[in-house]
Amino acid sequence: MRPYLLASLLISVAAPSLSQQSTAIAPAPVRVDPMVTALRADALANDHYAWDITEGLTTEVGQRLAGTEAEARARDWAVAKLRALGFANVRVEPFDMATWTRGAENAEVLSPFPQRLVVAALGNSGSTPAEGITGEVVGFDTLADLEAAPDATVRGKIVFVSHAMPRTQDGSSYGYFGGPRRQGPSIASRKGAIAIVIRSIGTDYHRNPHTGTQTFANGVRPIPAGALPLPDAEQLQRILKRGKPVTMRLTLVSQTGQGQSANVIAEVPGRDRSQPPILVGGHLDSWDQGTGAIDDASGVAIATAAAKRIMDAGRPLRTIRIVWFGAEEPGLFGGVAYQKRHPEAHYALAESDFGAGRIWRVNSKLGKQREAEARALQAALAPLGIVPGSLDDADGSDIGPMLAAGAPGVGLSQDGTYYFDLHHTPDDTLDKVDPEALRQNVAAWTAMLAVLSGGIESGPKQPKRR
Amino acid sequence: MRPYLLASLLISVAAPSLSQQSTAIAPAPVRVDPMVTALRADALANDHYAWDITEGLTTEVGQRLAGTEAEARARDWAVAKLRALGFANVRVEPFDMATWTRGAENAEVLSPFPQRLVVAALGNSGSTPAEGITGEVVGFDTLADLEAAPDATVRGKIVFVSHAMPRTQDGSSYGYFGGPRRQGPSIASRKGAIAIVIRSIGTDYHRNPHTGTQTFANGVRPIPAGALPLPDAEQLQRILKRGKPVTMRLTLVSQTGQGQSANVIAEVPGRDRSQPPILVGGHLDSWDQGTGAIDDASGVAIATAAAKRIMDAGRPLRTIRIVWFGAEEPGLFGGVAYQKRHPEAHYALAESDFGAGRIWRVNSKLGKQREAEARALQAALAPLGIVPGSLDDADGSDIGPMLAAGAPGVGLSQDGTYYFDLHHTPDDTLDKVDPEALRQNVAAWTAMLAVLSGGIESGPKQPKRR
Repeated sequence: MRPYLLASLLISVAAPSLSQQSTAIAPAPVRVDPMVTALRADALANDHYAWDITEGLTTEVGQRLAGTEAEARARDWAVAKLRALGFANVRVEPFDMATWTRGAENAEVLSPFPQRLVVAALGNSGSTPAEGITGEVVGFDTLADLEAAPDATVRGKIVFVSHAMPRTQDGSSYGYFGGPRRQGPSIASRKGAIAIVIRSIGTDYHRNPHTGTQTFANGVRPIPAGALPLPDAEQLQRILKRGKPVTMRLTLVSQTGQGQSANVIAEVPGRDRSQPPILVGGHLDSWDQGTGAIDDASGVAIATAAAKRIMDAGRPLRTIRIVWFGAEEPGLFGGVAYQKRHPEAHYALAESDFGAGRIWRVNSKLGKQREAEARALQAALAPLGIVPGSLDDADGSDIGPMLAAGAPGVGLSQDGTYYFDLHHTPDDTLDKVDPEALRQNVAAWTAMLAVLSGGIESGPKQPKRR
Repeated sequence: MRPYLLASLLISVAAPSLSQQSTAIAPAPVRVDPMVTALRADALANDHYAWDITEGLTTEVGQRLAGTEAEARARDWAVAKLRALGFANVRVEPFDMATWTRGAENAEVLSPFPQRLVVAALGNSGSTPAEGITGEVVGFDTLADLEAAPDATVRGKIVFVSHAMPRTQDGSSYGYFGGPRRQGPSIASRKGAIAIVIRSIGTDYHRNPHTGTQTFANGVRPIPAGALPLPDAEQLQRILKRGKPVTMRLTLVSQTGQGQSANVIAEVPGRDRSQPPILVGGHLDSWDQGTGAIDDASGVAIATAAAKRIMDAGRPLRTIRIVWFGAEEPGLFGGVAYQKRHPEAHYALAESDFGAGRIWRVNSKLGKQREAEARALQAALAPLGIVPGSLDDADGSDIGPMLAAGAPGVGLSQDGTYYFDLHHTPDDTLDKVDPEALRQNVAAWTAMLAVLSGGIESGPKQPKRR
């Protein structure tokens, strides 16, 4: 490998300041700054930072459930890594949070066809006693069917809700078809169910249940709530279809408590500290069953690798702030804590939190007066096979509240066709990360940062710490 | 669906007796009996018997570990099903066996990077205490490396053996690369290891460990022996590569005992009972973590569906004997019991026990004097995309000992490219069975039975019981 050679050579060419471009509206084809092109090409061919971070975090820490000692170990790892990479202002911003941790889990059909099913509790599930609870299963094909059912058909029973989540490239199926997880437990509890199991909000046919958070509505009694893998959900449907009463023993033990999480922050200082920073990040915490490789080690890795590559190239005009958010999974706690603590303006927000698949589209919402910059961004990414998308849309989990409050943002959309095969399952492990796709991500993020940076000036050569 | 209509029509055509063909040696293209063609085509288009059996057995019984009450329930199901289908001489031939059953399982890296790994005990594993055992992990890339290691490097430690099993269409990789499972535990125990974990003998990257039987060599002390899924095995390799001592707590609780298994037998009576029967079958038992859909519900289903289709068409000259072997997984116990109890000659033996993938090759070993019959068989199967293979080879698990003793046999080779993604894992479930490939199997088996049957005479129309 000969990383950075190309970029270093090109940095010495006096490239026009990128910020100059943003003054011209350009509906016609947009010329890409040669430095951006060079940084993008070098990342695509040579990046190893993102792989190193993804491999290191998932191997040396593994799962890192929010608010637990595992997430605390992950933070220590993050601080050490960000310092070793040479970033400035590496710091931890802690916050308190309610925790939920998983215990013993089991689902067993007792009659008419005795057999075990695989199950995992959803986040914030109520706990069963250690010996489980036993009840008749009542099945519904959709959440609407459950909602429409008379309470008497549900009361005292274990509700089962199926559905049919399709694959989508943009992940849009997760909203509608996530209903059984998000609202199902509250609806079932209101109707007097003793527990609920749902077909996993996922698209794979492995014995890997998909967990994920849900929150009981105000005043609703928490009940045990679990997810069955697709093979088990379809098995239960077949068993129910036989028309005999189905009895299940369900064990979903869990514990709640209080803990601490934190955001880990690092910076590439800009030449002009009066300019608002560009925020890039992902989340450090993960669910507890896989090693959180694609959700979201790869995300923090991509954002960080891109920032590192800019830093290797020289000094950007604007500060790049990297945030590894804590406690995203239980409910964007890190994002909310950051927003509260950082009322300052940001030049742009971008988060990588949709796996490690190739980026296929760029959306942005930079404001009407920055359309030329948005078009320059589109032009810089197109050679990576990235479709120019909306100029009035950006998304992200932890940054969602800030985007909603009007902050400018960029959304680099990863291909989610297979994301929900892995998301929130034991199968979210390093082997699922394709190094080539990861480099394409880093190339896109590097190009984005180069476009937004305000121009990069090569300074005295920095030692390339890893 | 309009099953059997085509076959019924064609049966009324006076087809030449199939057995007449077998008197002519035919190196040139072999004409296929129109009745064979018709039966094959009807099975390919319309068979539902195999799906019904596979779906029913896996749904209404689920896993059926050899020698347990689950296998006994599966036998009751089998007897009822074979009777309902209208077969004759449905019977159960029991035998006693040693049993091994799985208890609590857990693997936890305690240092240097605390995290849980997924693990499953191999068959006949020694048991740990409930609280597990703790030891340093010593890793080997191959079984040969373990064998070559000085005892002192292994004594008192937990051995980990990796390897790199490739995919093969014919499954031939399972022999060589199965070594760590079959011999690894005995070698490790001899060298004084306190336990062994191996990389699963499998080809998928899901968190599904592959179990499978192993037998400690004479005089060797049983030690706990488990398999890690590929993602976990590679994780452990990465952890070991960091060069720090790795400590693991391993819990593999299991129980041994005595139990009963049995073969379930049914027949399509031949017109000439003095002729030796054609034996077709698969095995009824399964491993305990999936529902044994491809190993081997689909196998008994394919063989049985083909026999049923011959019976629906009329009376074969030779008896077709269907055997659903018990206790194949722990060591071919059913096959050995059958061989002992049935010293009689068989016209041919064939077993379906390599999943539910399409058949891609036909081998046979019918003897030199039956070459024309073997070539007729090849010709009858070629239209299904089945390659004519060896005339001097046949295989099968339960029928293996009888084949080894010289009995004639046919081997319809299923495509095993993805078989070891599922084999002996929790992922062996109904959703993995492709109904179209299943029908191709039934078509091939039906054609084979038609060719070997000695000719089918349509008798008085039978009621088509299911």
